[in-house]
Amino acid sequence: MVSAVTVAGVGMTPFGRGGEQTAREMFGEAAAEAFDDADVPRDAVEEVFYGNYMGEFAEQQGHQGPLAAEAAGVSAPATRVESACASSGVAVRFGYEKIRSGQADVVLVGGAERMTNLSTPDATQALAAAADALWEIRAGVTFPGAYSLMANRYFHEFGGGREDLAHIAVKNHENALENDLAQFQKSIDVDDVLDAMTVCSPFGLFDCSPMSNGAAAAVLVSDEFATEHGLDAPVSIRGAGQHSDHFALADRASIPRAPAAERAAEMAYEDAGLGPDDVDTAEVHDCFTIAEVLALEALGFYEPGEGISAATNGETTIDGEFPVNLSGGLKAKGHPVGATGCAQISEMTKLLRGDHVNSSALEDATAGLTHNAGGTVASCVVHILEVER
Amino acid sequence: MVSAVTVAGVGMTPFGRGGEQTAREMFGEAAAEAFDDADVPRDAVEEVFYGNYMGEFAEQQGHQGPLAAEAAGVSAPATRVESACASSGVAVRFGYEKIRSGQADVVLVGGAERMTNLSTPDATQALAAAADALWEIRAGVTFPGAYSLMANRYFHEFGGGREDLAHIAVKNHENALENDLAQFQKSIDVDDVLDAMTVCSPFGLFDCSPMSNGAAAAVLVSDEFATEHGLDAPVSIRGAGQHSDHFALADRASIPRAPAAERAAEMAYEDAGLGPDDVDTAEVHDCFTIAEVLALEALGFYEPGEGISAATNGETTIDGEFPVNLSGGLKAKGHPVGATGCAQISEMTKLLRGDHVNSSALEDATAGLTHNAGGTVASCVVHILEVER
Repeated sequence: MVSAVTVAGVGMTPFGRGGEQTAREMFGEAAAEAFDDADVPRDAVEEVFYGNYMGEFAEQQGHQGPLAAEAAGVSAPATRVESACASSGVAVRFGYEKIRSGQADVVLVGGAERMTNLSTPDATQALAAAADALWEIRAGVTFPGAYSLMANRYFHEFGGGREDLAHIAVKNHENALENDLAQFQKSIDVDDVLDAMTVCSPFGLFDCSPMSNGAAAAVLVSDEFATEHGLDAPVSIRGAGQHSDHFALADRASIPRAPAAERAAEMAYEDAGLGPDDVDTAEVHDCFTIAEVLALEALGFYEPGEGISAATNGETTIDGEFPVNLSGGLKAKGHPVGATGCAQISEMTKLLRGDHVNSSALEDATAGLTHNAGGTVASCVVHILEVER
Repeated sequence: MVSAVTVAGVGMTPFGRGGEQTAREMFGEAAAEAFDDADVPRDAVEEVFYGNYMGEFAEQQGHQGPLAAEAAGVSAPATRVESACASSGVAVRFGYEKIRSGQADVVLVGGAERMTNLSTPDATQALAAAADALWEIRAGVTFPGAYSLMANRYFHEFGGGREDLAHIAVKNHENALENDLAQFQKSIDVDDVLDAMTVCSPFGLFDCSPMSNGAAAAVLVSDEFATEHGLDAPVSIRGAGQHSDHFALADRASIPRAPAAERAAEMAYEDAGLGPDDVDTAEVHDCFTIAEVLALEALGFYEPGEGISAATNGETTIDGEFPVNLSGGLKAKGHPVGATGCAQISEMTKLLRGDHVNSSALEDATAGLTHNAGGTVASCVVHILEVER
């Protein structure tokens, strides 16, 4: 039953502000790029899985599955999947599983989000709907607040501090410097991060990913289809995993741990027949700087308490042993929430096959991992990609 | 690869007004009933697919996948799928495909919706987000308006009129009379329908399904699991299909046709190895009376133009040759939109296995079909269930 799934093609709009384009227009652009990249005709698509989180708030638009298919020029069963900021990561997993299980040969996956047409307070309130409306939001918690709880508790249990987090922001901005698709192509230093206005202690402005618009898409095909049609597509998805956790932070056994990510990673490693040591790079969900730390530990790259100093020590920088978020991450590439999971797949595919501005850091790399989290990691999806060299 | 999927257990809250319970509470109840009915332990569940449409509007709550899993007492990958009023029909299909393809043995599916805590104008606006916000809603179209366009065009092309639609409402109210889970247990006659206040011509109040709260759940298992655990579960899902259409009515080739339903039905028939003639009863998506007509024709039970008189002629009543909406349908059972698709599965399962108040109409029946539509049938999902006798 199991076969790897080929990433035939990927596409992504530039991430950023703007906000004139609708989500459907952005997704249509990303999908068009993915079809061109894949050299697969639209009428081969058998199913569409599309991630969107806040369309109801930003565009008064639900029911975006068929709308996204139409924008992509595809006629097929089409469903919106919503798992907060992990929406299009889940869409990718559903596409992967549909093909891997032999139920389809060609699936279009992706996601889009329009955010900056909302005011910052309205967008913050829309994002808050990804946390518990009854037990968290009513208490005044927004996402910077929730993640700051996680950061402060992490410092309390394991040590580390704001300066370590600052190194993560600096690293991710550095990685995005030449990435034309990134929202910020601006170098910052540790003092810039530490001196920035406080959003929610310990986070300053540069510890937080921005409000962004954007879309991403990928055409996934069975290996058999890729071979039969002579596609030039060296990157495959080898494994996927997804899991959930107690919804509210207060119900978790430990606030600075992410068991949904741990279990999603276990599933993905087992599915791929690989372990953390086999992975050469990762795109992780750094919605806040602390989130990169929690991800690195949950994914098995670092022991609990040791991920905090990875960037400070230069281990996860572009020249380090294990570069993380070479795309710039959510922090610098931008975070149009429903597009982020598939954008990680798009960037990782380009990184591994050698046509990304930062591919030079991965000349001998064979495997990369993507980690996409929803809410305060109440949901998480992990993919492992491999490249044939 | 293909195997049938056993409906191990089903559960459903009473549908209706009320509105004090949250969606999560209602889903927890429905899931508890489904687990009891199934005699399957919660820790056997490998995945959760959960349908919800308007949680952002009604409860400021997105990201409901992990929340629904937690309410059901399940720890597993959990995703909200949203396809407007077809949300939990899609959830059922995803669960069915996951098992049928050999990727899981036990999946929890279902959906919930809380609607009546919103005012009618606010709920109408929330529902309108299932149509095209740019090209339909801005023009002032709401769902009664959109379906009235479909009805008036149907009359123009094929004949029939308000009185035929009234017979559908009368029939569905009659079917719900003894159904304790139904929102309305009230007998009406054709004059009641024709004399009721106009909502949007040709629809009076009784042509429209109500605002409802409610939840439904089903535990789906592989046939192997059912056999191994000696489950008493004679009903199986034999086939499923889903398809999409142009999103806005104005882009369709024909307004009173539903090609998404036609193609979903073709897929389901092919999957089940059955045709319309093999089906003994159907639960169809009668959000408005005309919708039952469009469904009967799209599903191949009637030729175009002939479905309109089915209820008038008594063919689809409980004593007719082909009873339709024995549960009361959306019209009388109620329509908590995200719960409706799975509620059809719950009611059909009970109807076929003989423990529904209207099961007596189906003593020799072997197969039933469910039809769940999103928006103006921009998306549709169809299931075919069989019972072992």
